[in-house]
Amino acid sequence: MPFTYNRTVRFQDTDAAGVVYFANILGICHEAYEESLETSSINLKDFFTNPSVAFPIVHTSVDFLRPVFVGDKLLISLIPEKIGVDKFEISYEITVVEVIVAKAITRHVCIDASSRSKQELPEEIVQWLETNRPDAEGAKRRKSREIM
Amino acid sequence: MPFTYNRTVRFQDTDAAGVVYFANILGICHEAYEESLETSSINLKDFFTNPSVAFPIVHTSVDFLRPVFVGDKLLISLIPEKIGVDKFEISYEITVVEVIVAKAITRHVCIDASSRSKQELPEEIVQWLETNRPDAEGAKRRKSREIM
Amino acid sequence: MPFTYNRTVRFQDTDAAGVVYFANILGICHEAYEESLETSSINLKDFFTNPSVAFPIVHTSVDFLRPVFVGDKLLISLIPEKIGVDKFEISYEITVVEVIVAKAITRHVCIDASSRSKQELPEEIVQWLETNRPDAEGAKRRKSREIM
Amino acid sequence: MPFTYNRTVRFQDTDAAGVVYFANILGICHEAYEESLETSSINLKDFFTNPSVAFPIVHTSVDFLRPVFVGDKLLISLIPEKIGVDKFEISYEITVVEVIVAKAITRHVCIDASSRSKQELPEEIVQWLETNRPDAEGAKRRKSREIM
Repeated sequence: MPFTYNRTVRFQDTDAAGVVYFANILGICHEAYEESLETSSINLKDFFTNPSVAFPIVHTSVDFLRPVFVGDKLLISLIPEKIGVDKFEISYEITVVEVIVAKAITRHVCIDASSRSKQELPEEIVQWLETNRPDAEGAKRRKSREIM
Repeated sequence: MPFTYNRTVRFQDTDAAGVVYFANILGICHEAYEESLETSSINLKDFFTNPSVAFPIVHTSVDFLRPVFVGDKLLISLIPEKIGVDKFEISYEITVVEVIVAKAITRHVCIDASSRSKQELPEEIVQWLETNRPDAEGAKRRKSREIM
Repeated sequence: MPFTYNRTVRFQDTDAAGVVYFANILGICHEAYEESLETSSINLKDFFTNPSVAFPIVHTSVDFLRPVFVGDKLLISLIPEKIGVDKFEISYEITVVEVIVAKAITRHVCIDASSRSKQELPEEIVQWLETNRPDAEGAKRRKSREIM
Repeated sequence: MPFTYNRTVRFQDTDAAGVVYFANILGICHEAYEESLETSSINLKDFFTNPSVAFPIVHTSVDFLRPVFVGDKLLISLIPEKIGVDKFEISYEITVVEVIVAKAITRHVCIDASSRSKQELPEEIVQWLETNRPDAEGAKRRKSREIM
């Protein structure tokens, strides 16, 4: 079961077209990421404010499938995946009453925050990736089907 | 008991000084207002998106008492008050673990959204003001003490 | 020569990591798009506020190459391209003193704003696409080289 | 002559009511403040990113006089005033084609950024206040009239 985050769309999220401003969908995805970190006992202030190790986003993409309105009850599900010793990627799916309204990706690299050089993912993030990775059993089943 | 709203400070709320960007405190107050409207069964999409009657803010002020950091658990309490046939004002108090970090006010007028001329507060807002007004008994007691 | 837009990075664009919050890069790209529309004599208020025809973004992606700091002088260059009778895509390149710091794409579809059904790009947008398309001569030269 | 800053209202500044979201007016005022600091040769990155001395806003207020729409050409004029050895206040007036649409105030205190204790305004800010203060001659004239 992927991690999920509930979020009501706020007036501030919208624009003069009457729907959520496109870039704000990414802010909402990042909130889900923060919530998931916190659920893994990571202290958000230490993690994000002048940390020694940081995880800047190097790539992102979003597919917008339906307009989203103020008051809409979003459910954001999040699946992170380790994609290298110093990288991970998060896939987000945003639904409103079980209809997908947007899908997004953020790709993060691990850097030393002062030198900004890449470094290996630290233990707490490896742990968080492990806790939130897609169900191993399900993944195995899918794989064996592909082989067949 | 005033209406209260819980809100975790997000990375997006902060600025390069490491704390919440000052204007974002007002956005958080507005979220509490939206949540309180919704609790009174007001449909947020109808209320805010191309409505016939609107309640624009004509005045706001904030006192910032302490810095607020990403991950901080805010409790926003909100007290609205009718201040005329076509106006109301909301007082907000934001606390982190029972310490006040900011106080704010938003003053709203009721207008016809197309002509933008003032008009009387409609029934649903009068009802919301009534539901959320400061405890009448407490107010009476305070008044009698002032007289003595 | 692509259309270019100058933009100083503001304090509000940054987050507690001391750099521009990732999603804000997209807001800055959208500003360049607005500026370019205005340069083609398109009225921004008519275009964006309750229009009959709208151009919502259905896909976006960003590559972040370097951190961007408050006060940085950004130069955003923008190249739109028609990719169907009812679609166009814009490529953005953001530089600071001639070093690329980010690249982005936004893909737009043309819809009837009330029914939200797709429709052909109207004349003013076709005109804007024509005005801002990559240099035709240069494109022809590139093509002939490819053939050779 | 007060310092002035030109700013086009962007789509991102607006909300589903079709006008600028109230709190965004303060962000626009802060941009004018940043521009004015830069005009006085203050380096914005040093000033705002992990500085040793900071100038957090302790109070703000805004009067909203007219709605502001995407594409509107704002002219923000800014008058700062020293109001103590460790404090200053900035008054902003925002106009669209010479009609005032909003007035705002931000009050700043000078603190040591690590201890967060108050301290005297440093030389560069005293200089900036001096450069941008309301015309001394005009102030004298007003004063002598008040005495009479």
